[in-house]
Amino acid sequence: MKKIGVILSGCGVRDGSEIHEAVLTLLAIDRCGAEAVCMAPNVEFPETDHLTMQETGAMRNVLVESARIARGNIRDIKDVKATDLDAVILPGGFGAAKNLCDFAVKGAAATVNPQVARLLKEMAAARKPIGAICIAPVVIAAVLGKELAPSVTIGNDAGTAAEISKTGAVHQECPVTGVIVDCEKMIVTTPAYMLANRISQVHEGIGKCVNDIVNMIS
Amino acid sequence: MKKIGVILSGCGVRDGSEIHEAVLTLLAIDRCGAEAVCMAPNVEFPETDHLTMQETGAMRNVLVESARIARGNIRDIKDVKATDLDAVILPGGFGAAKNLCDFAVKGAAATVNPQVARLLKEMAAARKPIGAICIAPVVIAAVLGKELAPSVTIGNDAGTAAEISKTGAVHQECPVTGVIVDCEKMIVTTPAYMLANRISQVHEGIGKCVNDIVNMIS
Repeated sequence: MKKIGVILSGCGVRDGSEIHEAVLTLLAIDRCGAEAVCMAPNVEFPETDHLTMQETGAMRNVLVESARIARGNIRDIKDVKATDLDAVILPGGFGAAKNLCDFAVKGAAATVNPQVARLLKEMAAARKPIGAICIAPVVIAAVLGKELAPSVTIGNDAGTAAEISKTGAVHQECPVTGVIVDCEKMIVTTPAYMLANRISQVHEGIGKCVNDIVNMIS
Repeated sequence: MKKIGVILSGCGVRDGSEIHEAVLTLLAIDRCGAEAVCMAPNVEFPETDHLTMQETGAMRNVLVESARIARGNIRDIKDVKATDLDAVILPGGFGAAKNLCDFAVKGAAATVNPQVARLLKEMAAARKPIGAICIAPVVIAAVLGKELAPSVTIGNDAGTAAEISKTGAVHQECPVTGVIVDCEKMIVTTPAYMLANRISQVHEGIGKCVNDIVNMIS
């Protein structure tokens, strides 16, 4: 059974993984007959109250909160190597741009969590496919933009696209349920909630993204 | 557009709504062309760490944590009336049996959150369909078992089924992707993660449950 890593960044759109995107990624992986390997970095982050959408001042832990989406079946990303996986996918949510890296604050000058950067570089070096959803392509751009210049999409947000371009990655606009496939660099991205206003649109785009990733596995 | 209430109980299988079940309920509602109306009671609950699966001693709030699944688009259940809805569905997770009622501790002698009980009684009196997933049929049994004696399922767990029967509800065994439909009482239930070991099984059962609920709307 093909093993698809899923890099989570917490549990909730404003301070972690976007929950719908993460769950629909797990569903699409299972429907492809592959196995999801959930993982997250063991780091703290500032909690956002999702009723008021304000930061509370309290801290939570990315690995512990991500475990909610994974029903407890999750690994610390520091223990996961590219040899354990056939592909890897990053769901979106602000956690991707705040907890996996600091793109939300620093844009193209972002630094990336060292374990996330290590695993993505290992995957690229091993010629294994990488997928990213919603805002998560910024993590790929920050890690691999300069070296690979991959084509990616976050939909059509001009400011974010400009920061992506500064990393060396190539931003392409994409409709809500579409995907941008860089066959040579083996990178697939889809806008999801960067553009979607219905969960069924997210389901459609992520389904295509995961199918393309699984079909790229050699 | 038909409005389907979704009663959430937190965000995480061990102390709230089971996240996959809740998201796949929202997806199924959208794919039916209906609108989900997320709601939860504004009450505290003891937090469970989903990495260790142990209680931490800290408290969280059901409405605030449920807002993560609803992307902030959620109402306090005290403000929702049956006249606002065409149907209502309860996803599973331990939160249904611990935060919406105390069935997890008291079984058939459970008391139910007063606002949850009120809304379910209003829906039944208005002849509007009610769905419940996984362990959540125990909430229906605790509120409506004696009065309506509805047929429901939680899969095949004998101990839980026995407690359900003591309420006056009728438990029927059901396979993992099946549904039990009580046409007369307008109640539809499906086992989901009471039996499932794959998310695609949960998707299939919840899809049938939501379709049946939507088709029952007069």
